[in-house]
Amino acid sequence: MKVVIVGGVAGGASAAARLRRLDENAEIILLERGAYISFANCGLPYYVGGAITKKSALTLQTPESFRTRFGIDVRVNSEVTAVHPAEKTVEVRTADGTYTESYDKLILSPGAEPVQPPLPGLPNGRVFTLRTIPDAVRIRDYVDEEFPDSAVVIGGGYIGVEMAENLKQSGVETTIVELSDHLIAPLDFDMACEVHQYARSQGLNLVLKNGVKAVEEGAGGKLTVKLNEGEIETDMVILSVGVRPDTALAKAAGLACSPRGAILVDSRMHTSDENIYAVGDAVQITDFVTKQPGYVPLAGPANKQGRIAADNICGFPSEYKGTQGSSVLKLFDMTIAMTGLNERAAQAAGLDYDKMYTYNQSHASYYPGGHGISMKVLYEKGTGRLLGAQLIGYDGVDKRCDVLATAIRANMTAFDLTELELCYAPPFGSAKDPVNYAGYAIENVLTGKVKTFHWHDVATLPRDGSVTLLDVRTPAERAAGAIDGFTGIPLDELRQHLDELDPSKPIYVHCQSGLRSYLACRILSGHGFDCYNLTGGYRFYSLVTKEQKAPDHPCYEI
Amino acid sequence: MKVVIVGGVAGGASAAARLRRLDENAEIILLERGAYISFANCGLPYYVGGAITKKSALTLQTPESFRTRFGIDVRVNSEVTAVHPAEKTVEVRTADGTYTESYDKLILSPGAEPVQPPLPGLPNGRVFTLRTIPDAVRIRDYVDEEFPDSAVVIGGGYIGVEMAENLKQSGVETTIVELSDHLIAPLDFDMACEVHQYARSQGLNLVLKNGVKAVEEGAGGKLTVKLNEGEIETDMVILSVGVRPDTALAKAAGLACSPRGAILVDSRMHTSDENIYAVGDAVQITDFVTKQPGYVPLAGPANKQGRIAADNICGFPSEYKGTQGSSVLKLFDMTIAMTGLNERAAQAAGLDYDKMYTYNQSHASYYPGGHGISMKVLYEKGTGRLLGAQLIGYDGVDKRCDVLATAIRANMTAFDLTELELCYAPPFGSAKDPVNYAGYAIENVLTGKVKTFHWHDVATLPRDGSVTLLDVRTPAERAAGAIDGFTGIPLDELRQHLDELDPSKPIYVHCQSGLRSYLACRILSGHGFDCYNLTGGYRFYSLVTKEQKAPDHPCYEI
Repeated sequence: MKVVIVGGVAGGASAAARLRRLDENAEIILLERGAYISFANCGLPYYVGGAITKKSALTLQTPESFRTRFGIDVRVNSEVTAVHPAEKTVEVRTADGTYTESYDKLILSPGAEPVQPPLPGLPNGRVFTLRTIPDAVRIRDYVDEEFPDSAVVIGGGYIGVEMAENLKQSGVETTIVELSDHLIAPLDFDMACEVHQYARSQGLNLVLKNGVKAVEEGAGGKLTVKLNEGEIETDMVILSVGVRPDTALAKAAGLACSPRGAILVDSRMHTSDENIYAVGDAVQITDFVTKQPGYVPLAGPANKQGRIAADNICGFPSEYKGTQGSSVLKLFDMTIAMTGLNERAAQAAGLDYDKMYTYNQSHASYYPGGHGISMKVLYEKGTGRLLGAQLIGYDGVDKRCDVLATAIRANMTAFDLTELELCYAPPFGSAKDPVNYAGYAIENVLTGKVKTFHWHDVATLPRDGSVTLLDVRTPAERAAGAIDGFTGIPLDELRQHLDELDPSKPIYVHCQSGLRSYLACRILSGHGFDCYNLTGGYRFYSLVTKEQKAPDHPCYEI
Repeated sequence: MKVVIVGGVAGGASAAARLRRLDENAEIILLERGAYISFANCGLPYYVGGAITKKSALTLQTPESFRTRFGIDVRVNSEVTAVHPAEKTVEVRTADGTYTESYDKLILSPGAEPVQPPLPGLPNGRVFTLRTIPDAVRIRDYVDEEFPDSAVVIGGGYIGVEMAENLKQSGVETTIVELSDHLIAPLDFDMACEVHQYARSQGLNLVLKNGVKAVEEGAGGKLTVKLNEGEIETDMVILSVGVRPDTALAKAAGLACSPRGAILVDSRMHTSDENIYAVGDAVQITDFVTKQPGYVPLAGPANKQGRIAADNICGFPSEYKGTQGSSVLKLFDMTIAMTGLNERAAQAAGLDYDKMYTYNQSHASYYPGGHGISMKVLYEKGTGRLLGAQLIGYDGVDKRCDVLATAIRANMTAFDLTELELCYAPPFGSAKDPVNYAGYAIENVLTGKVKTFHWHDVATLPRDGSVTLLDVRTPAERAAGAIDGFTGIPLDELRQHLDELDPSKPIYVHCQSGLRSYLACRILSGHGFDCYNLTGGYRFYSLVTKEQKAPDHPCYEI
């Protein structure tokens, strides 16, 4: 059997190695248009920032090591320019010319390419994208040699935020320009608010809801980034407005692709051609939660898909059951993690969902060094099936997200979260883990023990006396900030003041994080009141509404 | 409804708070024989060591705060001396005398008590146990005021090891004396070996397979700890040889108890008396994996059980589905975590199991700061059902254990582990997470792609030429240590030396961690050899066998 693999990074390299492990006698040819295979593309921002000091650390395998260990014919600087499915051949272009290579089975792992918006003024030697090792070297060399004072990162996705952090760490004043209202698109706006406020506290400038019109050479040797509203002078620009599947080759070969251009594959990573498989950032995936098609380019799924394609080629049935979008991001000391659906995705899928916001300490409050974890969990009404989670905090965020990712993979409900028996010792967690706690909070809603309202419901609550608005925090907390129209009765005095509350009116209660107001609701319900608890409490409400009130098109001159 | 709760820590306090949340009108009386309720017993060693500086941090709720917030009649220094189920009353002893209290429902949460072996020389003012805040204060005061040079901790379980760490951190030279062959009983011996070697590297003295016969006043103001073999001079002793359910009260009341003395309860935490529930360290649990009865005193289960007892008393059906023993321990910078069955438990349950040892980096190897995670996963042969896991390392150990704990709770198999989509970015993990990797390694065994042997099989492999013993590490690695009788052919040269190997003989292969030897096995299998891979590799083999060769009864004079 002769297998040709197009693309030598995550999915392609995984497929090649697995093929060899399954078939010692197969002829395996790995064609990579760049100079490197199996490189650490997720590590590139950290090479720019210097956390990864050596370029050599970025290559997990060299062509030579791969050849030696796996007996694979690795050909770098070899670009496949055409696939001929009928003939079962590919055209390969190298520095020395082109040639035709035949295959029995073909695996396409071309990856994704950075979207290059057709902006006036591009290309420009000081405007960079980041996808390959040479890209990263170019940026780092520019920073090391030209000592830029400032940078503008266009696009606030994972790579944009990681690049902004790493440029800032390198001493470059950095502004992120993002067209939408929040960084990190897979987060909902409300959860992104805490990221925005933290990013600013770390010295990053954020320009949200603003687009780039052009990049021009400006005065004093600077670049001028022209925005829809305003402009920014800067020394360099990183373009990170997203990626798209790099599938011109696949389309030209007649393979079925999605409207977005991603290659269509079945669960065995099989394309519309019986001899061609495709994996990684070039393929359309099935969303694990909704079972709907989607496009989620991530390294973990790419690696898994490569292995699965190899399994199937070698006659071992193996299925890819979908992508749930588990991902995590470091931003200075903050950790941002998510898995499953966000609200937009749940709405798009037509799911009848609700959400719970919780805020718990990463470990026992009496043991030093803990931090709050802000968690948003989406669940299906009625069944309590877990749909997705977004988590923001510091230590222990990635752990809770991985637990929730595993729970979602196991089709668990919020009820199941209450039963999870997670490891506990004071330096690591609490006897009731934040994940258990989220389960309890949702269970209380699902079983009718409490009704909730959310931060976005607050503005439209009647202020005409037809309902009671109650803040059960302490006077000191209220003095530091309170919601208009809410009367203060501290939780621990509530039982003594029940006669001041009108039992004929619904009561909307909040505290700082949502726990004390839950206790207040239980007291009030026990006395016959119709009661609603603000999820996430004043902490989350004030965070989000503060961010909502930020200027629509802020623009900082650096 | 009038509910009386005996015991105001984890399970009792949880039950009381939940009862109030579910029933605003219930009369709830919490009787605690000590002076504190809801205290952080898991934090006590860290108070001794100074990581927790203030005693007040150890009390999560005070009697006053609990009274105020939950309207609960909290009575400390109130010991229940008898339960009369027929009369539905308890006898309560206080400093002012005794009285009778009636109940509609009773919850027993008496906890466990430290085992006090009947050693000659006890009690002694310099021999301490640790279960309560006053215990911790006594020990810390002794250390702060008497400046002991040395301590002996008798018993190497969780509390013993945590106490040893914290005493050492306080500048006290500390020796742990353990009767069995390893610390941390829920670990298997092989996994404990790495803990032993690390503990010694941090300056702890370990005396294993040795028991204490007596504690005597010795020369020069020292204590003499007389061992079965040898003796140790020391300034203080911590007795931490385990706990037992504190159930004299329950037995005297005629409640059904296990032979070990734990109160028998059903899944609703209901005892043999229709009006009495029991929770926490006093009850027998069902093992989640084997469904067999067991005794596993842990804070997480105690808290959950308290909540469940309250639910059932209030008419909300709620079930405790068993304990899986998820636990974690910090030892200086090391993290030791486990969940589910160890080998002894799997054998006792008659399960047909096998095991996999893996060693993977906590995060992408090219990103700084990663550490190896040594993982042992037990699974059922045939089905691949996950039975248990033990993990040792540094960062990220607790995360992987919680993922595995969740997988076990979801009745997942090793096949499912390969599909878990966990959060990946270079500072947090790898595109193939260590948990995925364990799944792959087991899947390869279950699907017949590789056969394995374990460290304890090495000694009995024939050295008579009837089998081939092959080490595929590099010459430099072999020079640093090799297993007798194994011939060296580096993996990357194996294909060139196949003709030197006799295809009629089975080949037993090892490398450093088990990955390269797996690749070697795939090469050899592809050429028709009958091949076996050493799980865990030379790294694990040498670790365990070095420890096996340690003197049986080492005894250090401090």
